[in-house]
Amino acid sequence: MSVLIKGGTVVTAEQMVRADVLCENGKIKAVGENLSAPAGAQVVDAGGQYVMPGGIDPHTHMQLPFMGTVASEDFFTGTAAGLAGGTTMIIDFVIPSPNTSLMSAYKEWMGWAEKSCADYSFHVAVTWWSDQVYEDMGTLAREHGVNSFKHFMAYKNAIMVPDENLVKSFSRCLELGAIPTVHAENGELVFHLQNELVKKGLTGPEAHPMSRPPEVEGEAANRAIRVAQVIGNPLYIVHNSCREAVEAITRARNEGQRVYGEVLAGHLLIDDSVYRNPDWNFAAAHVMSPPFRPKENQEILWRALQSGMLQTTATDHCCFCADQKAMGRDNFTKIPNGTGGVEDRMSVIWHHGVGTGRLTPMEFVKVTSANAAQIFNIYPRKGSVSVGADADLVVWDPKASRTISAKTHHQKVDFNIFEGMTVTGVNTVTIAAGKVVYEKGALKVEKGAGKYVDRPCFPPVFEAVKKRNDIRQPRAVPRKAAQ
Amino acid sequence: MSVLIKGGTVVTAEQMVRADVLCENGKIKAVGENLSAPAGAQVVDAGGQYVMPGGIDPHTHMQLPFMGTVASEDFFTGTAAGLAGGTTMIIDFVIPSPNTSLMSAYKEWMGWAEKSCADYSFHVAVTWWSDQVYEDMGTLAREHGVNSFKHFMAYKNAIMVPDENLVKSFSRCLELGAIPTVHAENGELVFHLQNELVKKGLTGPEAHPMSRPPEVEGEAANRAIRVAQVIGNPLYIVHNSCREAVEAITRARNEGQRVYGEVLAGHLLIDDSVYRNPDWNFAAAHVMSPPFRPKENQEILWRALQSGMLQTTATDHCCFCADQKAMGRDNFTKIPNGTGGVEDRMSVIWHHGVGTGRLTPMEFVKVTSANAAQIFNIYPRKGSVSVGADADLVVWDPKASRTISAKTHHQKVDFNIFEGMTVTGVNTVTIAAGKVVYEKGALKVEKGAGKYVDRPCFPPVFEAVKKRNDIRQPRAVPRKAAQ
Amino acid sequence: MSVLIKGGTVVTAEQMVRADVLCENGKIKAVGENLSAPAGAQVVDAGGQYVMPGGIDPHTHMQLPFMGTVASEDFFTGTAAGLAGGTTMIIDFVIPSPNTSLMSAYKEWMGWAEKSCADYSFHVAVTWWSDQVYEDMGTLAREHGVNSFKHFMAYKNAIMVPDENLVKSFSRCLELGAIPTVHAENGELVFHLQNELVKKGLTGPEAHPMSRPPEVEGEAANRAIRVAQVIGNPLYIVHNSCREAVEAITRARNEGQRVYGEVLAGHLLIDDSVYRNPDWNFAAAHVMSPPFRPKENQEILWRALQSGMLQTTATDHCCFCADQKAMGRDNFTKIPNGTGGVEDRMSVIWHHGVGTGRLTPMEFVKVTSANAAQIFNIYPRKGSVSVGADADLVVWDPKASRTISAKTHHQKVDFNIFEGMTVTGVNTVTIAAGKVVYEKGALKVEKGAGKYVDRPCFPPVFEAVKKRNDIRQPRAVPRKAAQ
Amino acid sequence: MSVLIKGGTVVTAEQMVRADVLCENGKIKAVGENLSAPAGAQVVDAGGQYVMPGGIDPHTHMQLPFMGTVASEDFFTGTAAGLAGGTTMIIDFVIPSPNTSLMSAYKEWMGWAEKSCADYSFHVAVTWWSDQVYEDMGTLAREHGVNSFKHFMAYKNAIMVPDENLVKSFSRCLELGAIPTVHAENGELVFHLQNELVKKGLTGPEAHPMSRPPEVEGEAANRAIRVAQVIGNPLYIVHNSCREAVEAITRARNEGQRVYGEVLAGHLLIDDSVYRNPDWNFAAAHVMSPPFRPKENQEILWRALQSGMLQTTATDHCCFCADQKAMGRDNFTKIPNGTGGVEDRMSVIWHHGVGTGRLTPMEFVKVTSANAAQIFNIYPRKGSVSVGADADLVVWDPKASRTISAKTHHQKVDFNIFEGMTVTGVNTVTIAAGKVVYEKGALKVEKGAGKYVDRPCFPPVFEAVKKRNDIRQPRAVPRKAAQ
Repeated sequence: MSVLIKGGTVVTAEQMVRADVLCENGKIKAVGENLSAPAGAQVVDAGGQYVMPGGIDPHTHMQLPFMGTVASEDFFTGTAAGLAGGTTMIIDFVIPSPNTSLMSAYKEWMGWAEKSCADYSFHVAVTWWSDQVYEDMGTLAREHGVNSFKHFMAYKNAIMVPDENLVKSFSRCLELGAIPTVHAENGELVFHLQNELVKKGLTGPEAHPMSRPPEVEGEAANRAIRVAQVIGNPLYIVHNSCREAVEAITRARNEGQRVYGEVLAGHLLIDDSVYRNPDWNFAAAHVMSPPFRPKENQEILWRALQSGMLQTTATDHCCFCADQKAMGRDNFTKIPNGTGGVEDRMSVIWHHGVGTGRLTPMEFVKVTSANAAQIFNIYPRKGSVSVGADADLVVWDPKASRTISAKTHHQKVDFNIFEGMTVTGVNTVTIAAGKVVYEKGALKVEKGAGKYVDRPCFPPVFEAVKKRNDIRQPRAVPRKAAQ
Repeated sequence: MSVLIKGGTVVTAEQMVRADVLCENGKIKAVGENLSAPAGAQVVDAGGQYVMPGGIDPHTHMQLPFMGTVASEDFFTGTAAGLAGGTTMIIDFVIPSPNTSLMSAYKEWMGWAEKSCADYSFHVAVTWWSDQVYEDMGTLAREHGVNSFKHFMAYKNAIMVPDENLVKSFSRCLELGAIPTVHAENGELVFHLQNELVKKGLTGPEAHPMSRPPEVEGEAANRAIRVAQVIGNPLYIVHNSCREAVEAITRARNEGQRVYGEVLAGHLLIDDSVYRNPDWNFAAAHVMSPPFRPKENQEILWRALQSGMLQTTATDHCCFCADQKAMGRDNFTKIPNGTGGVEDRMSVIWHHGVGTGRLTPMEFVKVTSANAAQIFNIYPRKGSVSVGADADLVVWDPKASRTISAKTHHQKVDFNIFEGMTVTGVNTVTIAAGKVVYEKGALKVEKGAGKYVDRPCFPPVFEAVKKRNDIRQPRAVPRKAAQ
Repeated sequence: MSVLIKGGTVVTAEQMVRADVLCENGKIKAVGENLSAPAGAQVVDAGGQYVMPGGIDPHTHMQLPFMGTVASEDFFTGTAAGLAGGTTMIIDFVIPSPNTSLMSAYKEWMGWAEKSCADYSFHVAVTWWSDQVYEDMGTLAREHGVNSFKHFMAYKNAIMVPDENLVKSFSRCLELGAIPTVHAENGELVFHLQNELVKKGLTGPEAHPMSRPPEVEGEAANRAIRVAQVIGNPLYIVHNSCREAVEAITRARNEGQRVYGEVLAGHLLIDDSVYRNPDWNFAAAHVMSPPFRPKENQEILWRALQSGMLQTTATDHCCFCADQKAMGRDNFTKIPNGTGGVEDRMSVIWHHGVGTGRLTPMEFVKVTSANAAQIFNIYPRKGSVSVGADADLVVWDPKASRTISAKTHHQKVDFNIFEGMTVTGVNTVTIAAGKVVYEKGALKVEKGAGKYVDRPCFPPVFEAVKKRNDIRQPRAVPRKAAQ
Repeated sequence: MSVLIKGGTVVTAEQMVRADVLCENGKIKAVGENLSAPAGAQVVDAGGQYVMPGGIDPHTHMQLPFMGTVASEDFFTGTAAGLAGGTTMIIDFVIPSPNTSLMSAYKEWMGWAEKSCADYSFHVAVTWWSDQVYEDMGTLAREHGVNSFKHFMAYKNAIMVPDENLVKSFSRCLELGAIPTVHAENGELVFHLQNELVKKGLTGPEAHPMSRPPEVEGEAANRAIRVAQVIGNPLYIVHNSCREAVEAITRARNEGQRVYGEVLAGHLLIDDSVYRNPDWNFAAAHVMSPPFRPKENQEILWRALQSGMLQTTATDHCCFCADQKAMGRDNFTKIPNGTGGVEDRMSVIWHHGVGTGRLTPMEFVKVTSANAAQIFNIYPRKGSVSVGADADLVVWDPKASRTISAKTHHQKVDFNIFEGMTVTGVNTVTIAAGKVVYEKGALKVEKGAGKYVDRPCFPPVFEAVKKRNDIRQPRAVPRKAAQ
């Protein structure tokens, strides 16, 4: 079965060029001018539109068991919502409970994900340490296409990783050619502040950002960076939300470290006034960590995307409905943390990024797919429009508009943090694995059509990292025998 | 006539992939695995080697009339030397004397360049101001493929551009969709220091770096950036040599400005101790501006290349032989400024960049060709390995070594600033316009085979810049009639 | 005649201590516990209050001829207003027109100032260059107690100093042991923007800040710093108003340069929204240069005061009444630049500085008097509470409040930029030259009681500066005779 | 008994002035010109010399039990050596073993210190946590003049404080008006690196700096700063040795935090090449933590002293003789950490600071005594030359020289890290508690003459800190009743 996209301007990380794109058997078969449609091919008219790689959301949590409940969005509905918005692949997280086998958790998540209708892959969290964890990391990396391991520096008394284990896990990652990733918040300080706030009677959602101020994130980002510097790892920091974290990353990159940073669509556009909304439900619906920040942080995040100090955009899509959020009615620390967005990321970043001149269309491709694909070593299979690549594409109309609303979105959650935002720049067509799965508002997805994507270890940057590590290898000083 | 490069690993700015490359009629016809050679094709064996875009040196001065003499290297010998070292295109400079027509200078340089054996293009310097200069800039931009104009902030009483004209020329560039470039040194301070030094009897080459300390460069870089910020231009700063300049660029980029920076191979690797060499000829041979810097600047420049704060590498190739340098025997300010390097840039950057893990091979391609091609809007025609691109390629053996020497180089100058340096990583074959022009040490060039490359105005970044400028347009406040 | 201040807490730059202060014959005679009043002494009860050095405002323009009119506040009314608010000394500016003798301008200003009722001194502006200017600087420095020279980097076609003269004047200052000061705005860019704005029909006061954006100030601050770095001067930058300038100063200080920065009370507290006020008179009343800035700059200025990156606070007191401001009704560039404040500086800085915990009382003394006295080499005569010092003191009630208003202020101008602000922390008594000149709201000043204060050249920092300059003196390389 | 110092120039943190100083009964009785000597007074001729506050070394470890041995220098010999070099007060450390009572440790140290011949005080280390620790901190602060508590972030499995306890202890300090201090090195990383190095067979002293690279210090400095920021404390960081730590402090201070930094004389002047000396004894003699650093850090430390980003200088005087160092012959991690210097600090900082123009004499007083006295709230009793202050003074000859050597020093240790350094600027006389204790090379000290110095809690900066903390107090959002 083949699809020919005609008349568009192909945008990649590197260039914009008038070209048609022919997809066959799930792959891109040809990119060029005036391609002719094979017999039986479906022809998509991309006249006046852009043709870009489908989005990769490197940070989602479908049907995550968390804080005593389970995220409302499952792998089927979530990947479908992504496709509706132009995102054709997610990287989700396997999060074993402490003292639980990484392998068994991995298998459990793999089972849940079978119903996905878009491609997916998994970061695996290291939430505790033992010889078995060490072994399982090797098995996952070598046999299961896992080239990234996640570390939570917050959530004390749950999944928080103390420095001692951070050091051990980062060292293991280096051996395996896998990249460590961190959720950077100082869990001790968060715990202290939560207790102080509750003690003072501040139990509403407005206390949530007070319990996780930006300095708590900046501290942990810097700490993870320093650990990576000492061990000699590249590092990926998820959901940077504030100046403090951006500055830590910028410093490290300017000093030659291979540090990558992700930013969420929400942090680019929503500020912390939401937590002071008099409507508890509205405020609670925004509870996620790190929290939304004072507005001045947004321009800093945008600029870091533009300058290349941050490389990827994601959503941390993790949905809880109002009745779930209500678990924290009397104590904000019990509100399940998470917000949605997998469906809207592409449009809101185009509108506020390309539409304002902060990003070029090519930079848009970098931050929505190509960079993630390169960092996680699945490029050019994903994140490119090139012969042989997976045929995951969007046809993008830069003039079309839509208004975001929970009433109309495909996400399985009763709230949308971008409610009411009218965005210009939308996907008119989404193609996944060579099939048109979304067109003119109609979603045509198939449960289970999504495949697990192996991510090979030792992405090219590791060779450079290894050379740097070799150069700084310690050397003994020859000495006379002891006197 | 066709050439098939077989068995190599193609490296571009984005990826490394096993592929053959077929060149026909000066263009790349196909990139893919297991391509078969057309009848009569020359087959180049690239087994175990990399196939990369040929280098672009965006900063050369062939046969430049300067400081009372003329650079020894002409367009034929200079482009030939470039090809010998893997550089397949240069961007040289048209530098009209003050009060001389830009158009006539352009034509003069175009005449000189006809004998080039590799492709070339021209930045045009704005060295004075008048209505005619304004008009000529338009003609050059619209009719002659000039999308960049150069401004010297040093060389008082010669070609120095005062701020008043900087403002006018930058404004004109913005109208034309051309990018202003600057040589950033504060000419007033240089002039003052030169006079002071000579007055104190410091007339030798050791006084050269004292007359142009890093702060003089940092000042001018910052000033140009601020002018560009106010006018709303993107900006390209040539030959950044020191921490002070890198910091100015980094600040600007982190604040959302579209500022690009170039670094010379020489500044990455040679320090200012050369000027204190007791051999006058040796010291004088290194006189160029900005001068070589204290060693600690080198790591800063490398890191800026790695982090993306600097984007391009060049040579400022401008050769003067010992007898020419001798013009400044009694006064260092009379030593013709300039050093060579067009032949060696690729190898020294590979060796010290990729060989040390500072750069990945893909980053090497970015900083030696792809970024320059993108900034100056000739990508993917140049700087890529893609179907339809110019067949300007190098076959690169990362294990082969050579030792650089004036005795063996192809450059028409009696000195080599990299003399005696053994580099690992060399081009075994250079292909220009689809022809093998260098192979196993043998240069097979043809005078006049090089073509002028038109560089269209309004590269894609201008659309983003325009949107930013529109957003900050001033707006009047409605007021009641005057009381 | 003597005055005994009893029962207060003496605050200096270094400490807070319970002590009485005895003043005799214009000097402080004793500081200690339980001093007894000499016969006939006036006793001031300072119980529960602070006793601090009177304020020094190092930046005022009394009766300045400027932009076709003359500032409404003269030396008598202006110094009186200062005393009413606790400021016991001003440093004003002699500003010769270009091509006018510095000496004759100095004498003219000295004549105007004779009527002052508080002590005063003069910075002298270098607005042009000639051998006579060079000579006059020497005469002023050596014979007239002028140890600071001012340079306007803005006001093109009027008093702007081009870089060439900046270099010459800074060099001269170094010889004389005088400190150069600069008004840092890039005059070429301001001129360009003014023309562009007027051309676009933006002629109202809202265009004023658009014509002098922060980057224009940051550029000039950095340029002056770099010139001082090359010449080897200490440097004082007046009225820093924005992040860009603070960052330039911070960088320089962190790199070992002796750079000092001043901030105006207005810039600490008023933002640029005033220019968009629909009332033209209100907006025009705020026109001064540099203009008031976006609010986020204020915290940056406060923090720089706290961290010691900025050292002094001033007002740039330069008053024009509504009818004078009206000269620019049709063109904002004709609005006389200037605002008042000499009376209110102490209270607004206490209220917003000490009252908020940004500053300790000792830091308040530093930034309102002691630092200026040290930089301009009149410490401890001024800026201290020590035996032998001039008896210029305030008794400060940290609990008392007053509301600022043009209706009640002593300044000779019809507008107050702090109108309606209620400040807690006011001087209940001001003592100048050992006399009570202000008490419980009553001003008892005497025309001509103020004296000119000689400021000796070569303040102590020059010895350190000289050693640094000596260390970096250039040295020639011995070479063999020319071959 | 009284002493009159005649004819000198008094230097304080604020000024230099010709004045005599009269000491009586251990206090300064008068400062002024032409004082006459009381009957029986000893007259010290200070002609041509400076009279300054005696040095305060805020970081010493006399007779410390550490790493299985006890520091060779005891409180008598150590304070005597200090007096010989112009240091008239030390602040030492009480370091309770984990699970040991703070009060009993305090008493033990107080007993050891009774033999001191110069004044002393104690920081107390918090090395573990319990309700009793919490109570003891209160007792020490309120009843025993302890206003600073120390926290070791390194020395895992010994006295390292985990973040959890850092938070608790900082919170307690805030209640008490005491300042927390930290030894900033990430103990987990040091532990990991030590193990790795030993595993690789790197057991010599050259491995010591490899096990504690600058990033390990920068990380911990930043972490402590962030904890202080969240809790709302001022903070004092001991022995900052590298760019990374200075940058963390600079950032914090520029953002309005009250963070103070100390630097050791050794780190200002000695680099890490000492560890690669082929003589094991020489290398081992330099083993201390943090280790000496690559040379480029030194200028950064000096500049931070000059700009005020670092405030105090100390020595971390902790002496071990060659036979003690030999405990680590086979394993560098067993070498007792520590070097001497209490005798030489004043001279080496004068020579390399004032002698090179980095510091003015007034800045020298700030960084050697006044700032420490202010931070630890014993100013102006200590650190000033003012009536009523303790008569701890040095008469300083800026022209006199001496050559430092273990052969001639008074320190009880067989090694001197400044061996062979000739310094210009030495104390000709030291006066402690109003008595001449050192004169022309002769030490006349009395065992037990030194007194314990109470340091009151709540130094003035706490009032400012409290106001800042109050302003950021969290406030609840009023909400409608739950739906």
